[in-house]
This record gives sequence, structure tokens and C-alpha cells, in this order.
Amino acid sequence: MTESRSTALLTDHYELTMLQAALRSGAAERPTVFEMFARRLPESRRYGVVAGTGRFLDALERFRFDTPTLDHLADAKVVDDPTLEWLSSYRFSGDIWGYAEGECYFAGSPILVVEGSFAECVVLETLALSIYNHDCAIAAAASRMVSAANGRPMIEMGSRRTHEEAAVAAARVAYITGFATSSNLEAGRRYGVPTAGTSAHSFTLLHDNERHAFEAQLTALGAGTTLLVDTYDVVRAVRTAMELAGPSLGAVRLDSGDLGVLASEVRKLLDEHGATETRIVVTSDLDEHAIQALAVAPVDGYGVGTSLVTGSGTPTASLVYKLVARAQGDDPTSPLSPVAKRSVGKPSRGGRKWGARRLDEHGQAGAELVYDYEPELGRLERPLLVPLVAGGETVGRETLGAARERHSRAVAELPMTARQMSRGEPAIPTLFEQRALT
Amino acid sequence: MTESRSTALLTDHYELTMLQAALRSGAAERPTVFEMFARRLPESRRYGVVAGTGRFLDALERFRFDTPTLDHLADAKVVDDPTLEWLSSYRFSGDIWGYAEGECYFAGSPILVVEGSFAECVVLETLALSIYNHDCAIAAAASRMVSAANGRPMIEMGSRRTHEEAAVAAARVAYITGFATSSNLEAGRRYGVPTAGTSAHSFTLLHDNERHAFEAQLTALGAGTTLLVDTYDVVRAVRTAMELAGPSLGAVRLDSGDLGVLASEVRKLLDEHGATETRIVVTSDLDEHAIQALAVAPVDGYGVGTSLVTGSGTPTASLVYKLVARAQGDDPTSPLSPVAKRSVGKPSRGGRKWGARRLDEHGQAGAELVYDYEPELGRLERPLLVPLVAGGETVGRETLGAARERHSRAVAELPMTARQMSRGEPAIPTLFEQRALT
Repeated sequence: MTESRSTALLTDHYELTMLQAALRSGAAERPTVFEMFARRLPESRRYGVVAGTGRFLDALERFRFDTPTLDHLADAKVVDDPTLEWLSSYRFSGDIWGYAEGECYFAGSPILVVEGSFAECVVLETLALSIYNHDCAIAAAASRMVSAANGRPMIEMGSRRTHEEAAVAAARVAYITGFATSSNLEAGRRYGVPTAGTSAHSFTLLHDNERHAFEAQLTALGAGTTLLVDTYDVVRAVRTAMELAGPSLGAVRLDSGDLGVLASEVRKLLDEHGATETRIVVTSDLDEHAIQALAVAPVDGYGVGTSLVTGSGTPTASLVYKLVARAQGDDPTSPLSPVAKRSVGKPSRGGRKWGARRLDEHGQAGAELVYDYEPELGRLERPLLVPLVAGGETVGRETLGAARERHSRAVAELPMTARQMSRGEPAIPTLFEQRALT
Repeated sequence: MTESRSTALLTDHYELTMLQAALRSGAAERPTVFEMFARRLPESRRYGVVAGTGRFLDALERFRFDTPTLDHLADAKVVDDPTLEWLSSYRFSGDIWGYAEGECYFAGSPILVVEGSFAECVVLETLALSIYNHDCAIAAAASRMVSAANGRPMIEMGSRRTHEEAAVAAARVAYITGFATSSNLEAGRRYGVPTAGTSAHSFTLLHDNERHAFEAQLTALGAGTTLLVDTYDVVRAVRTAMELAGPSLGAVRLDSGDLGVLASEVRKLLDEHGATETRIVVTSDLDEHAIQALAVAPVDGYGVGTSLVTGSGTPTASLVYKLVARAQGDDPTSPLSPVAKRSVGKPSRGGRKWGARRLDEHGQAGAELVYDYEPELGRLERPLLVPLVAGGETVGRETLGAARERHSRAVAELPMTARQMSRGEPAIPTLFEQRALT
């Protein structure tokens, strides 16, 4: 199972035809800046979460037009021979800055800044957007669920409800936002995400009766396992579980019915059997609202599937990747000029940006600052851009644990409104700081 | 760029722990039937669309526990040594039946029927669900968009708004449902989906002015290209385009503003310049409703992105994979008994099913028939299950074109209500036909 596949064709056709036209017109080598940002946060989100950075850096290193790739482009007549020739030695040689993975973002935050020739930057549009749009959408939903769970452990188990590779990415993202474990084994292998799981209803149904199934599971996995107790009758199942495993049973799982009511009933039953340490895990189409509603129930952990991997109503982060500056005229050494489309309803701001978070004396965030010049940051302005690629070399790689810790700190820094589940304004406003004209 | 990677870990942890427990209890080799079906259609869907079959067959052939995979499972202590030993020679050896790709489905339709030992069937749960849940969700949305476009060509261009591999699958699915082309180059290479694209706003902004950009594009790509005319002022851009390319210009693209109004204005302008054959393509957050609303506008093609790849409000098909029958007791030759969970709110029907579509004398579908016995089908009952895997060998592989033709026929067969964009009841009811007790 190798990760060495070329990512070069995870690209929209028009990027290569633009390249062809720019090579012909002579504009291909013009220095440019592209930025990725969200025009606004989705209606139900009070903050965005940067995710996908590590995956993007991996994919960028594999963005090479090898022979089979070039053969396809030639056979399908996507571009002409000079363009194929140019692509054959493609290797991104510019600089990339970005918000670090796990960081929060807001409308207009320049979460990725890509600097290089037009040719080398334009071909990365789809790859960057696909990775960040998916991962950031999942992260924003996952982070709210972690807030709603208020310290109780969360299990990611949505693989079955999304594309099989998106599932692996979602498991990785969930871990960054604070989930304890995932069901996805490939996420364990590829990224070191802790994985967990014990049994489904099919295991109970396979055996002649529930008692046989529980015995089989306890024999194979030990008393520390989690027994699924809602295949037939929950109360009878818990009694059987207590008979067979006693108070050392690890946990029971409820996957249907009124979870709050059932959890209380099961807790009482477990306690009566002295199983005060046996945990109750609930699953069954939970989202952040259902999790919050169970705050008063005796629940020890939540398994979340569909709503996590589909971004809980917002399956894409709607990030865009825009040319914001380019060299003026044909002199590649001239200072870059800001550029922006002038169209109705799709505002964008020309010029390279720098992001910072303004904090108060207690370390609480008050505003997202987006400068259109390189600022000298004050004592209470935390810089947000970090170097990811320098002169074509990856310099921003980090562990998943580092992103996880960063995310926890970044959310803690936001005002309390950030953790509200209701719809509302972004937790902090974005202030666009323009260089004073002198 | 190889497709030879093992898919074995695109699996939930609990499938392997169930396997371990079943190997220990002796139940692992019990003959079983698992079925995939939807409990109901999503609220806004009048029919479901089977998609993912070809991808599932590919992934199944690569479902092998090779040495690196086994090493990970051992290192991470997912399962014990006897289980690893069993997995090392895993190869699905049973039979799989399914609705053919492109076929329509309804609540309860057994779109995949997997027969084999518990051990060999249970480990396929997540792989099968991930592929079908994603692809069927996209297909159901895409099919409605094709209906709404009413014969005008559709371009799939959503790669940037979804996971980079989900994007490739979405492009494949869109083609099956009738889209003309996709922007996704990897879908072209991997599946032969026709790809298309010309330029983005960044190309116009890169050049010193719009005229330079258009000249560059026309020089490189010829007059048959599509010019993007809304970077600055649409009317001026169309005039410039006419000056430079004349009536042989292939198309212009509008990506913002009031598309209906703009299209009429641009059509008039093009016609005045004799460019009556120059097409108008519109893009910009279109969904099936926006497409339908543009029916009266002089539009020659639609590009669809976000709403397609996110399933237009329904990003997952909510298909489940359930054990429905197993051998009784320990005699593997005994007839299989139906089994089903008895839980609140999640109904499922035990026993293996057979699906058929009841037609009237005019070939119009009237009902989905789901038999719990192998029926002798009448003259007006079209059988829906086809063999996909027989004794472990793939027998159901077909071309993408075959699935595309099937889908077109399957939708044409449904009553007119199927093509309504409004919410409502499924186009035909599902009738569960039970064997009469004698």
C-alpha cells in the first residue's frame, strides 16, 4: 500500500490549457501570488478550521508528470507538445505560506499563499482546493462536536457514509480536532490515528442467541470490550452482559432508540450490578446538537458517523484559490501589482495578504486582522502565516499531534460565543487593514 | 500512477475484531447472506441511482492483506495471530449479485447481495458502503440535473469542492448519468471520461488587459475555444471577443451575475455579429433548480460544480449493509434462516431478497417488487439482480458506456413524476412480496 502515486492529474483540464496559452503568449513565467481563502464562513459556523495542510504537502511532493501521465495527456490531446515538454520537468520551485494546520480561520483569512511563476502556481489550483475544501469542512463540523461533547471522548466512525479515501482524510481531521479514536484502519496505518471498534449487530445475529454472541466476544476480546446491547431487548442484554462479564465489563453500546432514556436505565442497571466503572457509549446518527442534548445523560462516549464525514450540513468549505498579484508588464523584476475580478456577488481583494489574530490582555481573540502589506505586529497580535514550502522545499511538515494541540489552543483562545451551537455571527470579525496612502 | 494498492484497510476496526471473535467461537465459517439497501429514499429524491458497481469490483480485487498491511495490524494490536493468519490468505470466494450500475432503485431494493461465509462477507462492509454511499448520492443528484437540463449538455466541474479522490469518482458517476464532459483529468485517464476546459479568471488577470488574454487564448487554443467573458464587463468582453475571433468563436462562458438576463443580452450581441453558432455556457453555483429556471434562457450548456459533488443537499445515500440470513446451528448445509435486528426506528427485513420492476403494457414502471423468495417473474416483471461475482471471480464488469445507456433507459421507463424537481413521493412504490405460507 504505497503513497507514491502521482497526483498530477487531480487537476482540472483548464489549468493545463491556460498553461499552454500562457507558454505561447510569454506570460507563463510572470511572477504571481495566488491565495486561498473563504469569502465568508458557512451560515452555521462561528469559526473555520484549517485542515489538510499535511495532506497537501504530501500531495505536492507527488505532483509530477511522469511518463504514463504525459502519455495520457498526449493521447487525449489535452495540450500540445511544448506544454508536455514543460510539464515533464515540473516541480514546484516557489514559496508557500499558510495558516498552520488546526488553526482557526475567518472570512478573508489568507489560509494559503502560493508564490511563484503563473505556470507553476496555476496548475496547483484544483489539488489545493480539493484537499482543503474537504478537510476544512469536516474539521469545522468535528470541532463543534468536540465542543458539544465537553470532554467526553468522541469516536469517529463515519467511513461507510463517504468516499473510501475521503473517509481516511476525515478520520485524520477528526483526530486533529480532538476526537479520541477512529474506526478507520487505514487512518491508523497511514497517519497513526488510534483506531477502535468491537462488534456490530451482524455479530449478534450470526450466533444462535445473544448469550452465545456475548460469550464469543468476551472470550476473544476480554472483559474490557464493548458489548452492543440493542439487537433485541436492551435490559435483557445488559443483564446477560453482567452475568457473563461482571463489573469488569469495559463498556456497553447503544445504537438505537431514545438514547438519553436508555442510557439512564442502563446506568442504573449497571450500578446495581456493581459495574460502576462500565462505560456507556452511544451512537446512532448523532450530530453536534444531539450530542449537546445528551449532556445531562449518563453517557461516557459518543460515536459519530454520517454528520461528521458530511460536514454536518456543510460538506464543502467553499474556499477559493485566486490570483491576487502579478508582475506588471514584461519585466519580471518589477514589483507585483494587485489584481482582482470585478464581478457581481463574488468579491475578492487584490494583493498579497498577511493574517494575524488580535488578542486582549487575557489572551482572548478579538479580531482577525488581514493586512494587505507586511505589518510590524504589535505585542498583542499573533502572526498566523507560517512557511510551508521555501524555494520548492517542504519546510512545514509536522506531526498530527502538533496540529491537534494547536487546534485545542486556537479554540480556547476564541470568545465563548465560538462554542455556541446556535447559528450566529462569526466569533470574531475580520478587519481588513490597508496600507495608508502617503 | 497505479491502481494496484491494497484496499484491505479501508475497513472499520470492528470488522476485524468480529472476525477474531467468530474465528474463536467457530461461527466464522457459517454461510451467510448480507444485503445492501436503503431504508428509504432521501426526502428530495423520487428515485435512487445505483452507482459505484464498477469501482466496487475493482476495489474487491485489490482487497488483499499483504505483508505491510498485516504488519500494521500486528503492530497496532488490532487482532491476534490466528486472525492475521486467516487474513493473510483472504480472497473473497463467494457470490455477489447486484442491481447493474446506472439502474434506478427504491426503498428496500436489494442493490447488493453478498453470499459467503460470515468471515469473508463481514470484512467487506465498509468498503462496499463507502463506495456505494458516495457514488449513489452523487448519481441521484446528477441524474436530476440531467433531467432539468432537458438535453442541453452538462459539464461536471466540481473537483475543487470535494476530496481529491471523491472528485474522480464523482466525474465518473456524472458521466454515467448523462453529463457530456468533466473537468477532471484523472477521470479521463482512469475511466475514459471525456474532459474539457479552457480558462479561468486568473488567465485574464495575468495579462495586462483582457484583449491580450483573449488573443493569447485564441492563438494557443484556436477560435473553437470558450472565452470567459465576465472578468470585467461582459458586453465589452463579448465585443472584444467578436473583434478578435469573429463568428467562428466556439463559445463564451458566464460565471457570475444574473445568468438568465446576461445570456439573453449576450445572445443578442453575438447574433448581431453573425455569431449565431457561438454557444453560451453558464456556470456559477448551479443546481438542478437553477438549471431548470434557465430553461427559457438562450443557454447552450451548463457547468455544475459544488451541488453535484456534494449530492445537492444529500451527500450520502444512507445505504446499509446488513446480515439478513445465516445457516441455522452448526450444520453448514442446513438452509439459511432469516435474521434481523429488532430495534426501534431502524427496520430491516430478514431473508435474502430478489428485486424486479413491474412494467405496464407500454413499458412504464409501476412498482418495485422485492421478493423474499426466488420468484418466477411474469412477462411484465423486469429482473433487476445481475451476477457480479461468481465463486470469487468477477463476472459483472462492463464499460462505462453500458452503464450510461442503462441509466438513460431506466429513467425513461419511470413515470413522469420522476423528473419533477419538487419534493414528493418516490416515483413508484416498493411492494414487499412474501412467500405465501402453505
